[in-house]
Amino acid sequence: MQESNFIIFSGSASGKLAAHMARLLEQSTGRCTVERFPDGEINVHLDEPVRGRDVYLVQSTCAPVNDHLVELLALADACRRSSALSITAVVPYFGYARSDTRHSQRAPIAASMVASVMQSIGITHIVTVDLHAAQMEGFFHIPVDSLTAVPALVHAVRGHLPEEVAVVSPDEGRFKMASEYARWLDAPVAVIHKSRQSGTTTRVAKLVGDVKDRPCLIIDDMIATGGTIADAVTALLRGGARPQIYVAATHGLFVGEARAKLSHSAIRGIFVTDSITQSHPDWSALNVVHLAPLLAAALRRFRADESLADLYNHCIHNGSE
Amino acid sequence: MQESNFIIFSGSASGKLAAHMARLLEQSTGRCTVERFPDGEINVHLDEPVRGRDVYLVQSTCAPVNDHLVELLALADACRRSSALSITAVVPYFGYARSDTRHSQRAPIAASMVASVMQSIGITHIVTVDLHAAQMEGFFHIPVDSLTAVPALVHAVRGHLPEEVAVVSPDEGRFKMASEYARWLDAPVAVIHKSRQSGTTTRVAKLVGDVKDRPCLIIDDMIATGGTIADAVTALLRGGARPQIYVAATHGLFVGEARAKLSHSAIRGIFVTDSITQSHPDWSALNVVHLAPLLAAALRRFRADESLADLYNHCIHNGSE
Amino acid sequence: MQESNFIIFSGSASGKLAAHMARLLEQSTGRCTVERFPDGEINVHLDEPVRGRDVYLVQSTCAPVNDHLVELLALADACRRSSALSITAVVPYFGYARSDTRHSQRAPIAASMVASVMQSIGITHIVTVDLHAAQMEGFFHIPVDSLTAVPALVHAVRGHLPEEVAVVSPDEGRFKMASEYARWLDAPVAVIHKSRQSGTTTRVAKLVGDVKDRPCLIIDDMIATGGTIADAVTALLRGGARPQIYVAATHGLFVGEARAKLSHSAIRGIFVTDSITQSHPDWSALNVVHLAPLLAAALRRFRADESLADLYNHCIHNGSE
Amino acid sequence: MQESNFIIFSGSASGKLAAHMARLLEQSTGRCTVERFPDGEINVHLDEPVRGRDVYLVQSTCAPVNDHLVELLALADACRRSSALSITAVVPYFGYARSDTRHSQRAPIAASMVASVMQSIGITHIVTVDLHAAQMEGFFHIPVDSLTAVPALVHAVRGHLPEEVAVVSPDEGRFKMASEYARWLDAPVAVIHKSRQSGTTTRVAKLVGDVKDRPCLIIDDMIATGGTIADAVTALLRGGARPQIYVAATHGLFVGEARAKLSHSAIRGIFVTDSITQSHPDWSALNVVHLAPLLAAALRRFRADESLADLYNHCIHNGSE
Amino acid sequence: MQESNFIIFSGSASGKLAAHMARLLEQSTGRCTVERFPDGEINVHLDEPVRGRDVYLVQSTCAPVNDHLVELLALADACRRSSALSITAVVPYFGYARSDTRHSQRAPIAASMVASVMQSIGITHIVTVDLHAAQMEGFFHIPVDSLTAVPALVHAVRGHLPEEVAVVSPDEGRFKMASEYARWLDAPVAVIHKSRQSGTTTRVAKLVGDVKDRPCLIIDDMIATGGTIADAVTALLRGGARPQIYVAATHGLFVGEARAKLSHSAIRGIFVTDSITQSHPDWSALNVVHLAPLLAAALRRFRADESLADLYNHCIHNGSE
Amino acid sequence: MQESNFIIFSGSASGKLAAHMARLLEQSTGRCTVERFPDGEINVHLDEPVRGRDVYLVQSTCAPVNDHLVELLALADACRRSSALSITAVVPYFGYARSDTRHSQRAPIAASMVASVMQSIGITHIVTVDLHAAQMEGFFHIPVDSLTAVPALVHAVRGHLPEEVAVVSPDEGRFKMASEYARWLDAPVAVIHKSRQSGTTTRVAKLVGDVKDRPCLIIDDMIATGGTIADAVTALLRGGARPQIYVAATHGLFVGEARAKLSHSAIRGIFVTDSITQSHPDWSALNVVHLAPLLAAALRRFRADESLADLYNHCIHNGSE
Repeated sequence: MQESNFIIFSGSASGKLAAHMARLLEQSTGRCTVERFPDGEINVHLDEPVRGRDVYLVQSTCAPVNDHLVELLALADACRRSSALSITAVVPYFGYARSDTRHSQRAPIAASMVASVMQSIGITHIVTVDLHAAQMEGFFHIPVDSLTAVPALVHAVRGHLPEEVAVVSPDEGRFKMASEYARWLDAPVAVIHKSRQSGTTTRVAKLVGDVKDRPCLIIDDMIATGGTIADAVTALLRGGARPQIYVAATHGLFVGEARAKLSHSAIRGIFVTDSITQSHPDWSALNVVHLAPLLAAALRRFRADESLADLYNHCIHNGSE
Repeated sequence: MQESNFIIFSGSASGKLAAHMARLLEQSTGRCTVERFPDGEINVHLDEPVRGRDVYLVQSTCAPVNDHLVELLALADACRRSSALSITAVVPYFGYARSDTRHSQRAPIAASMVASVMQSIGITHIVTVDLHAAQMEGFFHIPVDSLTAVPALVHAVRGHLPEEVAVVSPDEGRFKMASEYARWLDAPVAVIHKSRQSGTTTRVAKLVGDVKDRPCLIIDDMIATGGTIADAVTALLRGGARPQIYVAATHGLFVGEARAKLSHSAIRGIFVTDSITQSHPDWSALNVVHLAPLLAAALRRFRADESLADLYNHCIHNGSE
Repeated sequence: MQESNFIIFSGSASGKLAAHMARLLEQSTGRCTVERFPDGEINVHLDEPVRGRDVYLVQSTCAPVNDHLVELLALADACRRSSALSITAVVPYFGYARSDTRHSQRAPIAASMVASVMQSIGITHIVTVDLHAAQMEGFFHIPVDSLTAVPALVHAVRGHLPEEVAVVSPDEGRFKMASEYARWLDAPVAVIHKSRQSGTTTRVAKLVGDVKDRPCLIIDDMIATGGTIADAVTALLRGGARPQIYVAATHGLFVGEARAKLSHSAIRGIFVTDSITQSHPDWSALNVVHLAPLLAAALRRFRADESLADLYNHCIHNGSE
Repeated sequence: MQESNFIIFSGSASGKLAAHMARLLEQSTGRCTVERFPDGEINVHLDEPVRGRDVYLVQSTCAPVNDHLVELLALADACRRSSALSITAVVPYFGYARSDTRHSQRAPIAASMVASVMQSIGITHIVTVDLHAAQMEGFFHIPVDSLTAVPALVHAVRGHLPEEVAVVSPDEGRFKMASEYARWLDAPVAVIHKSRQSGTTTRVAKLVGDVKDRPCLIIDDMIATGGTIADAVTALLRGGARPQIYVAATHGLFVGEARAKLSHSAIRGIFVTDSITQSHPDWSALNVVHLAPLLAAALRRFRADESLADLYNHCIHNGSE
Repeated sequence: MQESNFIIFSGSASGKLAAHMARLLEQSTGRCTVERFPDGEINVHLDEPVRGRDVYLVQSTCAPVNDHLVELLALADACRRSSALSITAVVPYFGYARSDTRHSQRAPIAASMVASVMQSIGITHIVTVDLHAAQMEGFFHIPVDSLTAVPALVHAVRGHLPEEVAVVSPDEGRFKMASEYARWLDAPVAVIHKSRQSGTTTRVAKLVGDVKDRPCLIIDDMIATGGTIADAVTALLRGGARPQIYVAATHGLFVGEARAKLSHSAIRGIFVTDSITQSHPDWSALNVVHLAPLLAAALRRFRADESLADLYNHCIHNGSE
Repeated sequence: MQESNFIIFSGSASGKLAAHMARLLEQSTGRCTVERFPDGEINVHLDEPVRGRDVYLVQSTCAPVNDHLVELLALADACRRSSALSITAVVPYFGYARSDTRHSQRAPIAASMVASVMQSIGITHIVTVDLHAAQMEGFFHIPVDSLTAVPALVHAVRGHLPEEVAVVSPDEGRFKMASEYARWLDAPVAVIHKSRQSGTTTRVAKLVGDVKDRPCLIIDDMIATGGTIADAVTALLRGGARPQIYVAATHGLFVGEARAKLSHSAIRGIFVTDSITQSHPDWSALNVVHLAPLLAAALRRFRADESLADLYNHCIHNGSE
């Protein structure tokens, strides 16, 4: 790895994660100043040269999403005007990803809009983790390396899980991700399925798959308000599952009353990554899995022009132990 | 409607549909020549002026998909170079739509590629029907009006359906469309769900929802080889459904052995639209629903700069009878 | 004016101003929903059709600047995808305008970046008021109509000013704007000039022009923290000006301790426009001049495809009274 | 040459040629899968990493031209999304090249359209052979290296030609190419010239240049239906040429009745390259000249950042023997 | 024709022609200022509003070509920034058109470069006359209406021509244009053909077609130095033509010694258009044909959104008398 | 520095400067042909390969500005089509820079237009010296390295200056540059300030800062007609300055009567750089400072991917002697 040829900068959303990545790559992050003018406008300055270097900008676009997004754009603009060779946005949590379709007629497609904006500023490569929908890659013309934290989460959760666990997708949309977990854990999958009964307007959650007397691992790509998970817990318990429920999700937003909703006695452990910085020192159920090893491994392959194909191989070995 | 301000041309895939649309708009389609040179290259010529006119190019990109696609591009290029005011591609069946994600690492996203190509040639507006994934709109910067044939298919199938029918989605991906049908038909939904059992590699189809002693309407966005439908029939019958099964799908590709697979004695009727031209005069189970009324109604609103919001209102009336 | 051919929407920064504009144009603003998801992401929905219509999006990108900017982009994206004929961003206060050059080496040019982003989303026309630097128009390829509130502010301030007033530019950069005021008021101009004395690092403010025993009108394009104005007051009083000082500025940001700094006994009145919504009911010195008449007059000319050349003519008449 | 820095993939049109090229460069072609879904849609997958590598996609866009074109685009899209450093399309036979102007009013310029499409997908460099019109390079913004097979064809045909041969251009358009052959062969040129006689509608072929009692070499850039060549043979014999006629053309399309038309007793040999794969084992008159040495030599220079200026020097030496 | 909806401006190259066009359209040209700063930089100002209007910029890019080109770009930039609805560049003589291919390896394609530049500034439509190569249209994405002055020149020259005249193309490249003339004049065509004799380096001009005892009309798209025409005269006389030679060319550049070279006693008349302003009051052989009727007729059709298909019909009637 | 990886070409405006730069880099400039066709069109040919090389095109766009601009574009187009790796335009004097705003309503922004045009042709990097306005960088998306000749001019002028010199900005716009000079020379700054007196139309020049009995150094970015400098001299002498005046400006255009205007007895020396080639062998007051050392130092850093941050450090040392 040619140290002098690349540099990692961090926006204000992802300082710790970027530093961790850099450390694993035996570097330090590039010094840069990200500050606010008194009126709230963002001011950015790179304190190290980027001319002719591959730049990696690490910034999750989590809340406050618009500030983090504009900050990332400003960093990219500074890199472009300063003759960076390439500008890779490492966006572990990609804000607006759930707005991948029009929420209604005459609405924007915010995720596609963000993609346009990023490309217009000269970002040349996107790295992200567990993107909400795979189709989002098609919003970009530039390469998108969409990594998954599932192996890392599996690795973290595995030791805690009782035997006979079932993997549960809390809605149809995560069925594929649940299957992924199940493959690593060699466990069966159940899905919670909400359908409308004839003649009523209420959606009834149906549990598909056998969870009877099993402990469960509910998985999701992100936890926002915790409502989906809470509903799933109710459905599982009603379906006869053992009150030993674990939750794994890549992105922990924990918005509003999320923590309260997730403080159910049946929930024994919650596993999220640090795609969004977590600071809940007193929340014992919460386990935070570091993304830096995954992202650093990806960067190592980028530097060496290698494929990401074997990125999760070491996990497989761990998995098959 | 100002007749002289717009013109409808048809590529070779959609001649009948375009003519039907034009007739409903009290027009005839624009004369144009689409032919092949001896070496197979496409040659196109517009026999009527398009200067300053809004042009509607009607062309499904069904098989042979690449020929139909290049033909559409050639028509658009001719319009652009001849000073058309706008170029709307009316693509009732949008080829490559299922390639909306990478099928594997280091694969193209063909649907996004097609979107890039269409836009690079100067197409300014897309109209399509029952797009495989709503995210595909985000592949475009230009407006995409994504219509649905569900109300029209419901209208056609309604009279044939026995009472107590259940609407069945043959996999998770069509759950939303099935709910749409169910809403119109005031019927319950069932979903066929394929999951892997622990320790095996075979996927087992589970039926979610009650079809016991019910006739069923299997719905889908498209029927290609017929395999998915055939599997669904098996699962339904095994699940106790009555052997009175109907199938409704927007796009009837009927590839390979499709017709044979769909000639199951329990299948009482198959309903598709003419998004792809159907010519099976001897296939009595097949009912073809015309898209021209829907597309003509949309065009009328485009001409009047009106919203499409009430496009399906007349169907609602029919629906509530 | 064809009412049905255009529609004015307002983002959350400029609701009152947009409503005022619409009222003057004998319209109401278009209904649209601008809300936040629980995680802070912006959700936008146009409740009225825009197909084939010229849309005017009124949104100052004042604080919180990034939220207001992304909101404007989301509205524009919704318009583009819904077949608006044109999308004019009416941005009375243009955030990031002071970042029109690199603040240091390896910094972004934020104003140029914002211009790129706006154009990438399909905005087709910009209307703004008293842009910080005229060069900013060159950041755009699309037309920029850069209006001035100076005549309106002159009209408002004129009645309050004692005789013999001098117009004062608080630094070199606003000299041209001060001359503009002076031309309308038929008054002399003074400039405050900060230069470094040989051998020292402190900048000394020199007053250029005669203010001896004169009341003064300090002008500026914007008031942020109020520091520049406060320094100018000190310099004027030291230069022998009468303690009858008026302040006129197009944009009133009033950041931080601004109000305190401007509560100097010599300051008899402060005039700003409502480019940024002002709500200081108890600040008697503050006079707010409405921009809606200016913006509505501009829109009337846009609708009639007329030049803006005579936009300020009525002010000239007032001015010559 | 750094082996690991570049990779050659072949589309389905040019497998043998690409393999030959790779062999000469002491490589093998990159493994990739190009297949069809049951409905005819193309599916592509690169089985080897391309990250950071210069990719050469070898694909003539010969018949079926649209399939080969879309395949090439799909390969390029896969490369772009997989972080290839550069994407060179090696298109020995460039389909649609004869549509370099509008065939009539309100027609496309298909060759320009293809150029737009290729560039929109991220192809960064074009290599082609004996392009129909030099102006086509101007349809591209990216570099186009337009090679010529004339020296290679001269080398192949030289040994077969009787003395006193005349080089014949079958129409005005190939006059320059005929002169090129003549320069290498040190032979005189004749041109067949079709002009309309006053008062008639038939074009009369006039032979310009002396072929009396001479054997002839008719040259062309491509042979499609063979009609042009057949007409030329007639004109030559009528003009007193010896019935010893040879034909050389870069691209052998042999469409329709081409082989029959070219089976004239006076035609002693036909020389084409393998820009289009030839498989006529029983056609003794046909000689196929390999393009791989030329293309491999060009690639060697690309790899070394060398000029192509001396690409044909070895031919000159051969030529002067 | 809605007068207020369009406006014709003229650059400094084409003032008389533009005024003539405007007069025929019962308008006057738009007032605009085109001047030079003392250092030679161009300064442009439109004295009339263009907002929402279709603008026609009439400017041949003849010598001094770069000044005329930049002037045209500056006019277009002014129109774009002032909200013109569309910007049509009417470029009767298109400079750099002969640089439609690379003159040598590592040379620009100047005509393609000019096309890129024009499009980058927002020109939306090109109108030109007798473009050097039809392929040049493919350099543009915007519509190009390439008119021909041949019918107008035929109309002008017809009365002067003796009977039995032959139309002569002075080289292969103009053969098609000569046939066009011949069709209108119902005359035979001859071509002058330069080929290299075996073993020599001199090109020998061969005359193809019968001119024996005939008066001749040499045609060309442009006359630059007059060398080509002078050579043609020599070849014709040597070939037995009567010393009654006429010359017709669309564009009269008359560079260097052109007038001297064309003052051959056999040349009885020279016909060019005013695509380039001609001012040779004492050159009796020179006849100047006005392009304004042709261009005004085209504009009339543009205004009415009509095809140009019948643009030359009145000429046909004249032609068939 | 890898010699073979880059090449410096010069347009006809900057031959000597480019050769000087190349010499300092121990190279020679690339051979290229820049000539005119008889009709004035520019013809360009690179006589050396550029494939895969970083190209530096040195060309001031001084008078004749349009010819020099189009020449630069043609060189860039040739580089792009010949596979140059990057194309840096080194434009020491950037023509049209003073047109960085609209000179009036409905005028172009010529500097922004030039920026668009340069980028449309594929220029990837701009290097220039003492740009008229820093905002111009924002007209580009590509990196702009805007160097300053102030340290070099200071170094040259320092030995000639008497003690007690004051640095004088001839108008407000150059105040920042004057402060820069003053910082290097440790001298006080004065500014000449033109303001309108109440009731008059004449602008009165006021001198701000103390020049009494001091020699003066008037500075400016460029000297065009010399009028501004001549006015400043008058104001200084009237203000009591010693008749020992020096003038330093980066760009010496010397248009029209400039030399006469600058031949004032009080002007003891004029210092300009060779950004524009100077050839006034008999003008003893004129001192020409070479830019090649600055530009070569910048190129050395570009080659080494180093920051320009320390580019002027050696000057600082000189400055502190």
